Amino acid sequence: MKLIAETSSNGVVEREFRLGDVPGILWTTRPEPGQAPLVLMGHGGGQHKRAPGMVGRAHRLVLDGGFDVVTLDAPAHGGRPRTGLDEREIALMREAMTAGEPVGEIVARFNGDLAERAVPEWRAVLDAIDPEGPVGYLGIALATAIGVPLVAAEPRISAAVLGVFWGETLVETARQITVPIEFLHQWDDEHITRESGLSLFDAFGSKEKTLHASSGGHADVPRFEVDSAVRFFSRHLISAG
Amino acid sequence: MKLIAETSSNGVVEREFRLGDVPGILWTTRPEPGQAPLVLMGHGGGQHKRAPGMVGRAHRLVLDGGFDVVTLDAPAHGGRPRTGLDEREIALMREAMTAGEPVGEIVARFNGDLAERAVPEWRAVLDAIDPEGPVGYLGIALATAIGVPLVAAEPRISAAVLGVFWGETLVETARQITVPIEFLHQWDDEHITRESGLSLFDAFGSKEKTLHASSGGHADVPRFEVDSAVRFFSRHLISAG
Repeated sequence: MKLIAETSSNGVVEREFRLGDVPGILWTTRPEPGQAPLVLMGHGGGQHKRAPGMVGRAHRLVLDGGFDVVTLDAPAHGGRPRTGLDEREIALMREAMTAGEPVGEIVARFNGDLAERAVPEWRAVLDAIDPEGPVGYLGIALATAIGVPLVAAEPRISAAVLGVFWGETLVETARQITVPIEFLHQWDDEHITRESGLSLFDAFGSKEKTLHASSGGHADVPRFEVDSAVRFFSRHLISAG
Repeated sequence: MKLIAETSSNGVVEREFRLGDVPGILWTTRPEPGQAPLVLMGHGGGQHKRAPGMVGRAHRLVLDGGFDVVTLDAPAHGGRPRTGLDEREIALMREAMTAGEPVGEIVARFNGDLAERAVPEWRAVLDAIDPEGPVGYLGIALATAIGVPLVAAEPRISAAVLGVFWGETLVETARQITVPIEFLHQWDDEHITRESGLSLFDAFGSKEKTLHASSGGHADVPRFEVDSAVRFFSRHLISAG
């Protein structure tokens, strides 16, 4: 991990880094990463590692939960290069949204493609940090399309907050996951039907899983879910750690 | 309210009282009730005001949330007299359970009958306490069969935690409710189908409502939901108060 910049606010040290070509940020209060339980935090589609919601969530996890938090720009996001296929899929998504047509099939296909590239990047950052304690994963929407195959493949991850995604392309992989899951769905999501979202929650093989389904549309995930995620990880990463 | 007994543990004063024929308990840290936000807490079928889960939840609400908490024995519960119809309905429920037959229709009918008697009792206890601040209602199973008509009828209640009940007999009344709702359902409930439980959540007219659906059977509601209820009431009764 190559350190690019280090800043500090509210007692939280923010280290911008690159791992190969992949830009990321590590938030911590400690002199060295990997000494606290670690939360891997993914961003949604069209966002990036330093989107305001990401920084806010990172500070809550570090200050309220005592976690280290690491995030990466997803492939084709945050200024990372896009392939011709990426550009075509993004154009298709925008056309469908503008026309008011269903976008689920395109998003699930494109995000699945991004996930194939992103999963090895997350595993490489885990290798680089080499955390002493337990590891969690937090991310909805695109970060769930990446998170489901990542959590299924990565035995170091022992709890995950996921959700706000279509089930169709992910249920088979979700069945392999057995770690505790907190799963978000928006009850009035204009893109994801209840049947599709709840089928993904239903698929997890986890003995311990809870669905949080709130009123409101796709982008209306309540702020109190951050607080809930901090407590979920406290139960599973700190009590277990 | 006639005081029957007063005891204290962990800084929580427990006042056992009677209001007419109805036995109840008030938990508080203050010399007079009604000065803190108040949570009305109902018990499940076959339980009573001093069941261990009830006392534990009351202490969490008082100590972690700063609320006063009041509970009542439901009609036909906790040693209160049963009518001949109560006895016949209870016998029918037990027969169906023993035979492994569906109990939803009997429970919904019997609990609806109990609710008709219980709602005026809860309103009378609210009159007697005459709280200065906001009021919440917490109760699942039988306490939701009572809570839905109570919250619909009672403008003093401004937030409620409900759930673990069949929708069929309650959806019409639930549509009239507009206060914030946290609603529990057990994903693998052996008595309540997902369709029935989620139809009740769906029916609430509330702009702000969240479903918490956890893996496990009817009796497996996770303990961390008490913590979640404390925070839900803190957001709605204290921030709003």
